[in-house]
Amino acid sequence: MAIKRIGVMTGGGDCPGLNPVIRAIVLAAHARGWEVLGIEDATHGLIDLDYRSPHGNRTITVRDVVGILQRGGTILGTSNKSDPWNFVVEKDGEETTIDVSATAVENYHKLGLDALISIGGDGSMKIAQKFCDLGLKIVGVPKTIDQDVAATDTTFGFQTAVQCATDALDRLHDTAESHDRVMLLEVMGRDAGHIALHAALAGDAHICLIPEIPYRVAPLVEKIKSRKANGHPYSIVVVAEGARTVAGEATYADKVIGEMPKLFGAAQKVCLALEPHLKLDVRSTTLGYLQRGGSPVQFDRILGTRYGVAAVEAVEAGKFGRMVSLRNHEITTVPIADAIERQRLVEPQGQLVHAARSVGISFGDE
Amino acid sequence: MAIKRIGVMTGGGDCPGLNPVIRAIVLAAHARGWEVLGIEDATHGLIDLDYRSPHGNRTITVRDVVGILQRGGTILGTSNKSDPWNFVVEKDGEETTIDVSATAVENYHKLGLDALISIGGDGSMKIAQKFCDLGLKIVGVPKTIDQDVAATDTTFGFQTAVQCATDALDRLHDTAESHDRVMLLEVMGRDAGHIALHAALAGDAHICLIPEIPYRVAPLVEKIKSRKANGHPYSIVVVAEGARTVAGEATYADKVIGEMPKLFGAAQKVCLALEPHLKLDVRSTTLGYLQRGGSPVQFDRILGTRYGVAAVEAVEAGKFGRMVSLRNHEITTVPIADAIERQRLVEPQGQLVHAARSVGISFGDE
Amino acid sequence: MAIKRIGVMTGGGDCPGLNPVIRAIVLAAHARGWEVLGIEDATHGLIDLDYRSPHGNRTITVRDVVGILQRGGTILGTSNKSDPWNFVVEKDGEETTIDVSATAVENYHKLGLDALISIGGDGSMKIAQKFCDLGLKIVGVPKTIDQDVAATDTTFGFQTAVQCATDALDRLHDTAESHDRVMLLEVMGRDAGHIALHAALAGDAHICLIPEIPYRVAPLVEKIKSRKANGHPYSIVVVAEGARTVAGEATYADKVIGEMPKLFGAAQKVCLALEPHLKLDVRSTTLGYLQRGGSPVQFDRILGTRYGVAAVEAVEAGKFGRMVSLRNHEITTVPIADAIERQRLVEPQGQLVHAARSVGISFGDE
Amino acid sequence: MAIKRIGVMTGGGDCPGLNPVIRAIVLAAHARGWEVLGIEDATHGLIDLDYRSPHGNRTITVRDVVGILQRGGTILGTSNKSDPWNFVVEKDGEETTIDVSATAVENYHKLGLDALISIGGDGSMKIAQKFCDLGLKIVGVPKTIDQDVAATDTTFGFQTAVQCATDALDRLHDTAESHDRVMLLEVMGRDAGHIALHAALAGDAHICLIPEIPYRVAPLVEKIKSRKANGHPYSIVVVAEGARTVAGEATYADKVIGEMPKLFGAAQKVCLALEPHLKLDVRSTTLGYLQRGGSPVQFDRILGTRYGVAAVEAVEAGKFGRMVSLRNHEITTVPIADAIERQRLVEPQGQLVHAARSVGISFGDE
Repeated sequence: MAIKRIGVMTGGGDCPGLNPVIRAIVLAAHARGWEVLGIEDATHGLIDLDYRSPHGNRTITVRDVVGILQRGGTILGTSNKSDPWNFVVEKDGEETTIDVSATAVENYHKLGLDALISIGGDGSMKIAQKFCDLGLKIVGVPKTIDQDVAATDTTFGFQTAVQCATDALDRLHDTAESHDRVMLLEVMGRDAGHIALHAALAGDAHICLIPEIPYRVAPLVEKIKSRKANGHPYSIVVVAEGARTVAGEATYADKVIGEMPKLFGAAQKVCLALEPHLKLDVRSTTLGYLQRGGSPVQFDRILGTRYGVAAVEAVEAGKFGRMVSLRNHEITTVPIADAIERQRLVEPQGQLVHAARSVGISFGDE
Repeated sequence: MAIKRIGVMTGGGDCPGLNPVIRAIVLAAHARGWEVLGIEDATHGLIDLDYRSPHGNRTITVRDVVGILQRGGTILGTSNKSDPWNFVVEKDGEETTIDVSATAVENYHKLGLDALISIGGDGSMKIAQKFCDLGLKIVGVPKTIDQDVAATDTTFGFQTAVQCATDALDRLHDTAESHDRVMLLEVMGRDAGHIALHAALAGDAHICLIPEIPYRVAPLVEKIKSRKANGHPYSIVVVAEGARTVAGEATYADKVIGEMPKLFGAAQKVCLALEPHLKLDVRSTTLGYLQRGGSPVQFDRILGTRYGVAAVEAVEAGKFGRMVSLRNHEITTVPIADAIERQRLVEPQGQLVHAARSVGISFGDE
Repeated sequence: MAIKRIGVMTGGGDCPGLNPVIRAIVLAAHARGWEVLGIEDATHGLIDLDYRSPHGNRTITVRDVVGILQRGGTILGTSNKSDPWNFVVEKDGEETTIDVSATAVENYHKLGLDALISIGGDGSMKIAQKFCDLGLKIVGVPKTIDQDVAATDTTFGFQTAVQCATDALDRLHDTAESHDRVMLLEVMGRDAGHIALHAALAGDAHICLIPEIPYRVAPLVEKIKSRKANGHPYSIVVVAEGARTVAGEATYADKVIGEMPKLFGAAQKVCLALEPHLKLDVRSTTLGYLQRGGSPVQFDRILGTRYGVAAVEAVEAGKFGRMVSLRNHEITTVPIADAIERQRLVEPQGQLVHAARSVGISFGDE
Repeated sequence: MAIKRIGVMTGGGDCPGLNPVIRAIVLAAHARGWEVLGIEDATHGLIDLDYRSPHGNRTITVRDVVGILQRGGTILGTSNKSDPWNFVVEKDGEETTIDVSATAVENYHKLGLDALISIGGDGSMKIAQKFCDLGLKIVGVPKTIDQDVAATDTTFGFQTAVQCATDALDRLHDTAESHDRVMLLEVMGRDAGHIALHAALAGDAHICLIPEIPYRVAPLVEKIKSRKANGHPYSIVVVAEGARTVAGEATYADKVIGEMPKLFGAAQKVCLALEPHLKLDVRSTTLGYLQRGGSPVQFDRILGTRYGVAAVEAVEAGKFGRMVSLRNHEITTVPIADAIERQRLVEPQGQLVHAARSVGISFGDE
């Protein structure tokens, strides 16, 4: 079947590199004479054709993508609440979820789409798979700032986020050394500690706490005291947001903040846990949304561009139900189903953790 | 009296530009054949000659300052607890304060200092004045990242901090626009809103909350809703840490967090106050210590260098009890006493606030 | 007279901060209910109403200026060949100049402009003055990346350019120190050495050559050899593009490159002049156009915004024939005629040169 | 044999990431109780034990490597003239080369080295191989900013250089668009066009000229004219320093600059070649040494750290004559001999060139 018109949408949290993907799709599609329809705010533009955000369901021309290669975010808008099978709506002042998948499928046809490229994470790929099962022609592009999709070697946004965290650590070093302080930095990573591990290696951290390696407070205190005894009365600690203590170990923080735990981040908890044991100021900073935005670093611009071109070629080749993927520096495709299945976590026995330990980084486990 | 040996110390919170000052002092002093003694960790090296931090009381040579022009922090170390008249010590497991000023004065003479250059903020200048009253020969160099010392037009560190906050706002824009969110950024400024105001102007913020202009919640909600109605369903809000509501206005946040107020920052409070009124996600980020560290921007390197050279010349000219100051682009000196007296706050009727209002920034007061 | 419609144009070399000025003008004008017409490519859009560049003569709306605060360049386009009294045209394959000023004046009225804001340098202000003499209502905004207009304390773009040059010097330090080399960096400044002087101070240069202080080769050689003898066998040299030797001193370079002098920059000449005298590698880099582009630093975004707001207020107040200006941190206006008259050069006896000499920077004059 | 003392040296052009390698070697070696001797200025410190640079042959302690992870250059110094078999010396005012390899071997033993880690490029690895043949125990670490060593997937410094070039392109875009100009940027790459290709993809270039794909002038002119006809009267061109025309095609530039060709870079030649064919300003900038210096990006810091740790482990395992290498994200070792043999060039039919063509980048070959 000759392709004439494709849709493209971005789902889940925004991530540096989304615009490069969109740009490459538009350029490669136009070179083939295809029209590209931007679906707005993840699936919102598919679910409700009258939905009007500033991003708008609209035809994306070559002129529309001039200058977006270097911009963070996504010109199509995105959303974390976009599952058509569990679509959040307000009813009598209460939030509830309904199934609007049939409408979405209907609108896909109404919009005259010959195919749809869905750029998104785990959640978006699950939705894409369900759509495929209902006959939609979808090619996936993986998006996870945490680099935790096992079906591809790496994803755009990750290098930008690690660079952002590394820059932050460089800054914290100045204050830590001037004031003889323990400085903690909380970075993204609920399930996977890749950002924290890479940032710790690149940002000269002394301690790195990640979900994959539960920590105890005692080794942390020991590490910091030992550094002080060796003439370095300051320490830098990177904490993934999903960092956790070994099972059963309650920290001082757990007791203090018992009532309002969800308002406290992982770094704040470590901060509260450490302070009673140290005669040093301990301060924490949460990098938060700063990691998501920003102009993508060159690596992510290039990877996004390659993914976009490959997605168009996959559409052309009729490889629906598949997701583009980077394997050993070459782009290929894998079944979307594979992408959903397996998460990539930090291997506690892997080379990177080993390298980190070799330069003296403690994971709080020994 | 011929100068042979001077001391130099840095006090209070660290600030980008301290190392450029130290470097310039060392280079200008050595050109005159003087020796420079670095006093460690603010007054600690003066109070206790046996005190040993990694920064160490030590002679600072020309070689020691190679490469520090571009580094944040201070190679001399610093401290927030350094008032010799209220020196914090531990006694029977409790913290208490004692007067060690006589020891400090004695050590000044023991160290054979002909003069002392004290780089610091309001607190350090008060201490310097007291030392002067006891006969020490001190020249001051103003340091405040908040730019709130009225006795000088500007101070080093401020431009670096504003740049850091502006870079953060550029990043938040990407996510805010992609997700149709309200993003808050808390920046430094307990009493003075200079950093917040400058960052808001440079970072394209829509709302700016500063201590000098108390806000109410209603105009904030209105501003955000009006933006949404005009096709911009996202907003960027800069919040100085000292931002406060108009007297008597309790926010929803005040009620919710009644019990643990000190754990909540100004931006978190605004966040909690706004959410019930908006059908938009509201998220806050606290820039925290990231504003203090980092390589100083060129402006702060140059200003620090000029201050350092001027401080050495003030010592040479016997201008003790005076502080270097920038007035209308030229370096001069003012009595240290003047520097303590008056804080520079944002003028609510001044040109900058006016410019901000003219480009549509709301201060939440109308 | 009530203002309904104003024009705005940018002339001369592009400069970081132009877009912030344009944005502020548009926001402040729209708040007054005025329409803003963007004149394209400096005066080209005024001279030829059928002229069509991508920047286009067009109405600039509030939506058009969203997101431009952080962008370098000018959305209106600009040109270095835009003098209506000496307008360059091609005739029989040859370039010649004609007087099209009458057409420009006529078009100003045809376009229904009540006033025109002209953002530009020395050349643009001269044109603006001539237009004023013919009855056009013009307010000027000064633009010079070199900071060489005496009628204002500073101009936008300058801080961004100095930061760019400083970043470059930070990079060159790494290689210079690793390889024991002499590294030269040529920066902008044909008549005025402000950028070179500031960059030398901020970038830890050892030699700074500017138009205002002619150099001789002998002191340069001596400075570099003396550094080597003191254990620093590398040197960093900043060269303004207008740097020149003292009258009558011909360098080796002058002889070697006699035939093709215009293809050689100032730094290359110094490079060729130094090499025969040193047993060190000497390498030069020309920063060139990298200094003009780039996202403006926060200072330039704020200054541009203030200028833009002030220009609209000057139009409102009927202050035609005047240019906005920064005087001792406050915005004011001065006659455009004043702005043309006097160039600001580096004062060889001024505080900045003195500070530079005090930290050991040689100007090659002694 | 138990290792007690190892040497480490860096050779060839400096490269961001060298200091991270040195730091990791020192940390991993000290954890094993080994001493580390820094050999100064590539082989110079091995050839002449009395040679004294500021880098000095010296024991490198853990304290010496604090803070160097984020610094460009090499604390050990380096040199491009360091082949002991063809060592450059001055004799009767003339440069000549002699064989000092025997002395170097002798000194290796005199210094009491149990092994030597040599960090360097093609040239350094050839020397290392010859030393191995004479019985020295050497482990290699690959270093090439051009990423042109086929025996490893990638090398540190490359990502930093590409980021630097990308940042430069972002800046040139502003001026190119504002002035409707053709802007050329010359980047490193004498034999291999990896930096140029990556920068072109990441920096939104329209033309990319690399050694592997010879260009003709006609297609370049056509591309630029076609862009202008489509409403984009500006173009960005990336030129590798080794870019060349197809055999036999002499350009206008070749004729004009016939006499002084070596003073002209590749971009200047393209510039001269294009100008007569276009009614657009054409300007070139040479990035030069700015690409070599600067704080390494996070990727290069991590890769350098991994290489350093792996080199120490290779020494421990007695894997002499081998070089560490990255293969499919994992560190391994390969024979040094392999590393010398094969250069990695850009594959004209590879995925990256294909992706570049797909987004409209012209290579001037068609």
